[in-house]
Amino acid sequence: VVPGFRFAGVAAGIKKNGKPDVAILAADGPVPTAAVFTQNRVVAAPVVVAREHVEAGKLAAIVMNSGNANACTGKQGLADARAMTRLAGAGLGVDAKRVGVASTGVIGVPLPMDRVERGIAAAAGALRPGWDDFVAAILTTDKGPKTHVATVRVGHRVVTVAGCAKGAGMIAPNMATTLSFLVTDADVTPAWLRGVTKRGVDATYNRVLVDGDTSTNDALFLMASGAAAHKPSLLPKIEGAVREVMDALARLLVADGEGAAHVAEIRVTGAPSDRGAEAVARAIATSPLVKTAMSSADPNWGRILGAAGRAGVKFDQDRVRLDFDEVPIVRRGLGVMDEPRAHAVMAKPAYTVRLDLGAGRGSWVVWTCDLGHEYVRINASYRS
Amino acid sequence: VVPGFRFAGVAAGIKKNGKPDVAILAADGPVPTAAVFTQNRVVAAPVVVAREHVEAGKLAAIVMNSGNANACTGKQGLADARAMTRLAGAGLGVDAKRVGVASTGVIGVPLPMDRVERGIAAAAGALRPGWDDFVAAILTTDKGPKTHVATVRVGHRVVTVAGCAKGAGMIAPNMATTLSFLVTDADVTPAWLRGVTKRGVDATYNRVLVDGDTSTNDALFLMASGAAAHKPSLLPKIEGAVREVMDALARLLVADGEGAAHVAEIRVTGAPSDRGAEAVARAIATSPLVKTAMSSADPNWGRILGAAGRAGVKFDQDRVRLDFDEVPIVRRGLGVMDEPRAHAVMAKPAYTVRLDLGAGRGSWVVWTCDLGHEYVRINASYRS
Repeated sequence: VVPGFRFAGVAAGIKKNGKPDVAILAADGPVPTAAVFTQNRVVAAPVVVAREHVEAGKLAAIVMNSGNANACTGKQGLADARAMTRLAGAGLGVDAKRVGVASTGVIGVPLPMDRVERGIAAAAGALRPGWDDFVAAILTTDKGPKTHVATVRVGHRVVTVAGCAKGAGMIAPNMATTLSFLVTDADVTPAWLRGVTKRGVDATYNRVLVDGDTSTNDALFLMASGAAAHKPSLLPKIEGAVREVMDALARLLVADGEGAAHVAEIRVTGAPSDRGAEAVARAIATSPLVKTAMSSADPNWGRILGAAGRAGVKFDQDRVRLDFDEVPIVRRGLGVMDEPRAHAVMAKPAYTVRLDLGAGRGSWVVWTCDLGHEYVRINASYRS
Repeated sequence: VVPGFRFAGVAAGIKKNGKPDVAILAADGPVPTAAVFTQNRVVAAPVVVAREHVEAGKLAAIVMNSGNANACTGKQGLADARAMTRLAGAGLGVDAKRVGVASTGVIGVPLPMDRVERGIAAAAGALRPGWDDFVAAILTTDKGPKTHVATVRVGHRVVTVAGCAKGAGMIAPNMATTLSFLVTDADVTPAWLRGVTKRGVDATYNRVLVDGDTSTNDALFLMASGAAAHKPSLLPKIEGAVREVMDALARLLVADGEGAAHVAEIRVTGAPSDRGAEAVARAIATSPLVKTAMSSADPNWGRILGAAGRAGVKFDQDRVRLDFDEVPIVRRGLGVMDEPRAHAVMAKPAYTVRLDLGAGRGSWVVWTCDLGHEYVRINASYRS
């Protein structure tokens, strides 16, 4: 997929259904690696360990398991996460400190370390340039794999950015985690990589709102092998490629929101500030009343105005303007919609809700999905 | 019900189903009146007008309609709300400024003022001491009337506080409003009444969280006729009676949350501050993942810790303690539950979730309900 990286994914018996559940992503040696982790106060053991290792310097590999989150597992969990990096490091011939770690799955259950150990040994012996097995092993409740590859070409030279993600929009049973692994052969510094990762996540992943809940395990890694020779002047284009991959993966995550039938881009403009626009967009995107109306394609615009109005942002309701795609819904605070046309927009799998508050120049965009019976069916089903 | 007040409720044809939809509550003349209104930026016309009239001084009556919220209706809506106070004032022989007004129902549709006018005239002619018709006319999607009466006795003297409310926990179609009307024959000043109302609402209504959405029309009124002669020393007991009525009505509202099968009291202790405890309690009470787990009585405690962890409050997950009623669930951040016992608590119609963060002395309590298929069925059903 990307020069300088090899991948493996194996079935170690952590998942009850026998699907692949241990995976390794390895560079040829320690390379610049940036990462972002969940902002949740309650963090899983692998997040603690991976953060330590990323902050300590370059990484040579990342080991991960699905089927068990290793979260709320106390000191034993921390010891197990450290053991995972040690076992992978031993298999690859690198120091444990150079290995990142991630887990996803059920919370509050200790890792079955005998199986994890056998899985890591098998994966370390199965590394190859193709990533199909890796991509399959990181999945849990996802409908399918989520990958995106972007390239930057200058003359004969090509720089590649490839990414894969798991997670059904953070709305799966047991707080399904979003894990993302991005690799590139760009030749860059750790500082550049950190800046690109932070800016990229702010503009993409952090715009995705399914239900406002965040996992204890969320993590995104970006590793750069440096295998592609290129001029520094190419860096802005490479950042663009990273952004393209993050944008594509974030949209795949929200589209795979469990039970989601509709994805809406919520574009708020005319707010007193960007921060105000963000607050309004988030209030709309997390309102259960808005999301249930979305599930039945009901153009119940009063709910959108009501959600906007409780975001703590100043605006004059008589200046509000609302459109669904190109269909006018509200002008100067008054309903003007052609109901069949409004309903037709909401019946589409994806559409845009444009809300202008008429109170300034602040703007923000988030993506969200609907909340219907499938969401309840999946999330209310008793763990088993 | 309470000396000094008369009530009426009539069917004026605003509701399609022919149920009562116009109501008047009248004192014998202008009396001290306190009120609180929705904090939403988008407010219905009657909220604007009622706030003006309450701030201007004593009220002699409140006129209300159900079946139409008179919200997002622009200048016409404001004119209609003012007309309602004028029509009721004319029927009762008091100035329009002395009349409060409230509406609840569909958003964005102009009031059918011909019907409203006939209804107000009929109600003004039907005032009686009993409130059964009034209580029926304020309802919309409620399962039934919500009333509570508290009394304070000293010797032969009795002071009464009576209240009625409508609203299915703010979770009904079209953002069902919470309207509450409280009356007492206590002899008190407007300033005392304002303080009691604010403190009472903070301790009761503001603790109820169904889905985090708030209506454009929410309003609570408390009128005091002064018909009961009593010593000023009785005021603390009267405040207690007001609190009792508000507490009872707030609990009735959350229990009537549409589709709700379980009510949970979320008690957060050990937070760095009361404000921090409130943030954690609200995060738990509004988490769709927690609420869907509640609907199936699934003791999926990782979701509760995960919701607590994203509230922006500092705590150490290794010190967290969680109980469902008297059943231990988490100790020092680790799961310790007897699953059948934990499930049995959550299967009850009402139970308490006790979360101690081990990070200070701050505490807070909120009440919430579950989110199941009924919620989706009701709120996703296309308006008709």
